[in-house]
Amino acid sequence: MPSADALAHAESLIRTVPDYPEPGVLFRDITPLLADAGALRAVIDALIEPFDGGFDVVAGVEARGFLLAGAAATVAGVGMVPVRKAGKLPRPAASVSYALEYARATIEVHDDLAPGTRVLLVDDVLATGGTLAAAHELFAELGVVVVGTAVLMELEALGGRALVHDVHTVFTA
Amino acid sequence: MPSADALAHAESLIRTVPDYPEPGVLFRDITPLLADAGALRAVIDALIEPFDGGFDVVAGVEARGFLLAGAAATVAGVGMVPVRKAGKLPRPAASVSYALEYARATIEVHDDLAPGTRVLLVDDVLATGGTLAAAHELFAELGVVVVGTAVLMELEALGGRALVHDVHTVFTA
Repeated sequence: MPSADALAHAESLIRTVPDYPEPGVLFRDITPLLADAGALRAVIDALIEPFDGGFDVVAGVEARGFLLAGAAATVAGVGMVPVRKAGKLPRPAASVSYALEYARATIEVHDDLAPGTRVLLVDDVLATGGTLAAAHELFAELGVVVVGTAVLMELEALGGRALVHDVHTVFTA
Repeated sequence: MPSADALAHAESLIRTVPDYPEPGVLFRDITPLLADAGALRAVIDALIEPFDGGFDVVAGVEARGFLLAGAAATVAGVGMVPVRKAGKLPRPAASVSYALEYARATIEVHDDLAPGTRVLLVDDVLATGGTLAAAHELFAELGVVVVGTAVLMELEALGGRALVHDVHTVFTA
């Protein structure tokens, strides 16, 4: 487990951008945190710590989830699975559509995991939870076990936690 | 440096998909390799090995480059910088447009790196080299030094190497 000081430093690097991507929204920009070696390692350690030894692979959702999934997988010594937007994988084995605010989105995954494989889902921000809930459904279709969902930051006011399985969050806002 | 056996095993996991994304194209699908813990670690070690100790941060281009950048950064003990498609970053500091086969694309980056920072660019496949050359130009605009470009697989027939700075490739096809 990283020290409280290391995590406080990492949290201080998250940049809050007002009115992005639209007026009234406070965007949490994690790129300054990612660029700092110590902060990156501290948050990756904190993301996986509650699940350590209990998962066989890390899954990340396109695109920001990919940044954390690769890091978390190598630190944990496991493989990684990309959950992609529709049309990006040559041979999707499962596909789930879900509602966004004004549209629908579809995510897909390959069938590189044997049934029973234990997956840790990771993402940068838990907002409404729609995408992570859809990713969970995607793995369930393949007979894969999602052991938990680890996010860097939870936006508590949006209530996404209710939709998502066994959430662990490093920071809250 | 990973063993020759480990790398041969990793290479054997790359799936060749004919006629994707269009007729006549052989697509190299690295998702089975990424899902295998030993193969993933072997290719990450091989990607960074020629540059080890000579870079301060790893940059990856959206979206597949993100999968490798996060892993390479944590294995090397450095931070990571995402190079994103236009419109995804709240405060892009530099932006470069480049030609695709039938269109143009734009990539952007934040200014979280001090001038003189040494960046290792990573990506999954070197094809025509257009995107990696544009990423190099992007960092040059910020006064950041690209020390090299590490790719998992080079498609030699497409000649991308001519456009890209100091290329190191783990596999060729």
